[in-house]
Amino acid sequence: MQSHHIVSAYDDELKFLTRKIAAMGGHAERMVDQAIVALVNADPELAQQVVRDDATLDEAEREIDDRAIVIIAKRQPVAGDLREIIGAIRISADLERVGDLGKNVAKRVVAVAEGRQPVSLYRGLQALAELALTQLKEVLDVYASRSVERIEFVRDRDNQIDAMYTSLFRELLTYMMEDPRNITPCTHLLFCAKNIERIGDHATNIAETIYYVVTGDQMPPERPKQDKTHRVTLAVDTQ
Amino acid sequence: MQSHHIVSAYDDELKFLTRKIAAMGGHAERMVDQAIVALVNADPELAQQVVRDDATLDEAEREIDDRAIVIIAKRQPVAGDLREIIGAIRISADLERVGDLGKNVAKRVVAVAEGRQPVSLYRGLQALAELALTQLKEVLDVYASRSVERIEFVRDRDNQIDAMYTSLFRELLTYMMEDPRNITPCTHLLFCAKNIERIGDHATNIAETIYYVVTGDQMPPERPKQDKTHRVTLAVDTQ
Repeated sequence: MQSHHIVSAYDDELKFLTRKIAAMGGHAERMVDQAIVALVNADPELAQQVVRDDATLDEAEREIDDRAIVIIAKRQPVAGDLREIIGAIRISADLERVGDLGKNVAKRVVAVAEGRQPVSLYRGLQALAELALTQLKEVLDVYASRSVERIEFVRDRDNQIDAMYTSLFRELLTYMMEDPRNITPCTHLLFCAKNIERIGDHATNIAETIYYVVTGDQMPPERPKQDKTHRVTLAVDTQ
Repeated sequence: MQSHHIVSAYDDELKFLTRKIAAMGGHAERMVDQAIVALVNADPELAQQVVRDDATLDEAEREIDDRAIVIIAKRQPVAGDLREIIGAIRISADLERVGDLGKNVAKRVVAVAEGRQPVSLYRGLQALAELALTQLKEVLDVYASRSVERIEFVRDRDNQIDAMYTSLFRELLTYMMEDPRNITPCTHLLFCAKNIERIGDHATNIAETIYYVVTGDQMPPERPKQDKTHRVTLAVDTQ
């Protein structure tokens, strides 16, 4: 699309947005990854670092918004270019939220570290985070390449994330029932798991935005719905 | 601002966005309100109604996005009008999320109804929801009147919501520790409380967008941070 432009400064402006989104994506991925490392290793210093890192994403989102507005006002884009710019605004908002979710996991490190949790819970959380981060990475690859024909993988992966989250949710409830000392740390782990599951949702949002940017159409509205844990109840082990 | 326009069809287009946002706001408020009623009265039919109602908000968000893009392309707005249109896109995304949060509360009605919870927990949740809905209503009033000088109330109210949420979080953990049969329903109530607290965050986002639409400036980035429950741990009552 950019070959249509006569004004090369305009191309640079659009490329600035794309590059900034890629940088935000890398930053958000790193934050989430390190939040999980901090959680698994009970490392409050690393957690603090993740919390501090979030300011960079907030700043980047504001910068993209400001630049986008300036570009629209100056260049009066239509069709594909306009969608490109609106898409950048939306995607940066999703990436900023991913950073917030990573920060929220990091903030729970201290509360979780006070109880000793079974290794399997951390494994489950790590696996969930890996899946969500893979989803995010692949969606950002699609954004970089505009290869929107690949986008269907997003829904399947989202279903996998939801299934893994539901199973982790059950496992955490079971530990809570086994010993009341597990309740506080496992509650925080539940929220960590929920945060990671929501990272998958944001990746799906981003995929929908990319689809819209490239095709001009919305992806069909109904997507196989997400978090099934609202139905989870467990028989109480009365031992 | 609209008095500057020569083209009155343009005014109508901008007014369409404003009216649609107001309608979305009313719809989102009702969904949240009814989700809480369904929860308190253990009313699965009402809960189902809330879940179905969410489609209206999804549809409205898409309509606002589509219209906004058409208006920008056709009218090539600058300055205040452009901010107005970008603001409508952002606010509709926040309201769509508020609806999702209401729907998520509604989906938990069945799981919560399986345990018998103390009345005080529902009272706490109702009070939290009232505060969050008042926040949302007042923010939407500011949007309708553009009286951005009133916007400071938003931060104080957000702090009240966070304090009430933290206290409810502690109370729920206590009930879970008292009796393992409380764990599953109280976990769902914890997520309900978290969802309502996040409605307050979306109201704050909307306030920030309105500030930006009216003044052209971003509200200062750091806002007194929100959810403090990541620090909550409780001594275990070993009785």
